[in-house]
Amino acid sequence: MAIKLYDLVAAEENRAFSPFCWRIRMALAHKNLEVEIIPWRLTEKEVLAFSNQDRVPVIVDGNKGDKVVSDSWKIANYLEETYPDKPSLFGSAEAKAQTMFIDSWNGSLLGVLVPIILYDVFENIDPKDKAYFRESRESFFGKPLEEFQDVTEEQINNFRTFLESLRNTISQQPFLAGETPNYADYLVFSTFQFARTMSPKQLLETSDPVYAWREKMLELFDGIGRKNLGFN
Amino acid sequence: MAIKLYDLVAAEENRAFSPFCWRIRMALAHKNLEVEIIPWRLTEKEVLAFSNQDRVPVIVDGNKGDKVVSDSWKIANYLEETYPDKPSLFGSAEAKAQTMFIDSWNGSLLGVLVPIILYDVFENIDPKDKAYFRESRESFFGKPLEEFQDVTEEQINNFRTFLESLRNTISQQPFLAGETPNYADYLVFSTFQFARTMSPKQLLETSDPVYAWREKMLELFDGIGRKNLGFN
Repeated sequence: MAIKLYDLVAAEENRAFSPFCWRIRMALAHKNLEVEIIPWRLTEKEVLAFSNQDRVPVIVDGNKGDKVVSDSWKIANYLEETYPDKPSLFGSAEAKAQTMFIDSWNGSLLGVLVPIILYDVFENIDPKDKAYFRESRESFFGKPLEEFQDVTEEQINNFRTFLESLRNTISQQPFLAGETPNYADYLVFSTFQFARTMSPKQLLETSDPVYAWREKMLELFDGIGRKNLGFN
Repeated sequence: MAIKLYDLVAAEENRAFSPFCWRIRMALAHKNLEVEIIPWRLTEKEVLAFSNQDRVPVIVDGNKGDKVVSDSWKIANYLEETYPDKPSLFGSAEAKAQTMFIDSWNGSLLGVLVPIILYDVFENIDPKDKAYFRESRESFFGKPLEEFQDVTEEQINNFRTFLESLRNTISQQPFLAGETPNYADYLVFSTFQFARTMSPKQLLETSDPVYAWREKMLELFDGIGRKNLGFN
């Protein structure tokens, strides 16, 4: 049986852009679990009513009596506990604990990224989601979306500077998790995949070791990252 | 047999302040290895000639034919490989790989901290080290030490903001490494121990979860952190 994943998409069904869904797409592939993607749009809140909340990712595990789990961190933990014979997403209790740190750091990275690509996201989401997107984001940021249209070189440079810990690490080893990638890598990759999917901006210089790492991430699992519609 | 550790101290022999030595002090205690601390000052370069370089930490392992190892990361790895039956410093290969990320992040944290406490360090180091300290730091920063005397509230706030990933993590679990501390915690603690030892500035608000975490770190291993001379 497959695991259903409700996955946020843009106008096109194969332009999935949620960083929270992407880490789960990668986690499911890492565990070699069969997946059925259910494209979902921001305004389809009622579709998720069965999960008692209204955000993606949500999984419905057909192998386990249609068990419903939402929230990416809870889903990752559910998969790890439910499928212990499949490749581990963390490697050890200590590594999982440290993944919390990388998760927090990645949250700050998203905070630097979002203002840079927010208007691009608005332009590329499904037309039916635009009014909701505008209203919710303008309420959150307290200013019109149009004020995010002009992105400065300083913002891009801040983003690149923020990557220093990542850059140092993957300059010394192939992946954040060492010789092979795990959930720590998927977490951070999901931020880049969000950007690549929705924004034409060149955020990484091709000479950046982070660019080379992202290229490797795009190749994983038959290139599921690269097959998704995106800019390059 | 004891392991000798050359440890950078200030005017007083029990005011050890090197963040690179502190992580090794904690690592040796974690592995429950007998240690003999050899107080060392910045200008005693010739004392370290036997190690073919001139920086601390350096260890001389009396259990292993006086094996000499320098560089904190190399020492941590040496201890992990040489004493596999003692408690692990990392927990797993994946956790060790992710500790590289925390190490890099901690390096950036040190970069934010150093200008804030540089003049305090100068005031508290051994008088015989002052001329060397001034020359080397003024050369590195390209300006007189006196320009570090006035520290702005903005600098302190930047330091506190930079701690967000740490704060989020240790708000959700007791230590960076989970239920019990390991080298990831010692790395980051060493930065705070450097500050506490040499600067009277209140860098952390007592209500900050990072403060509570640091308090726990100061208690570890019979309070070796707290027994060291410092400000509070």
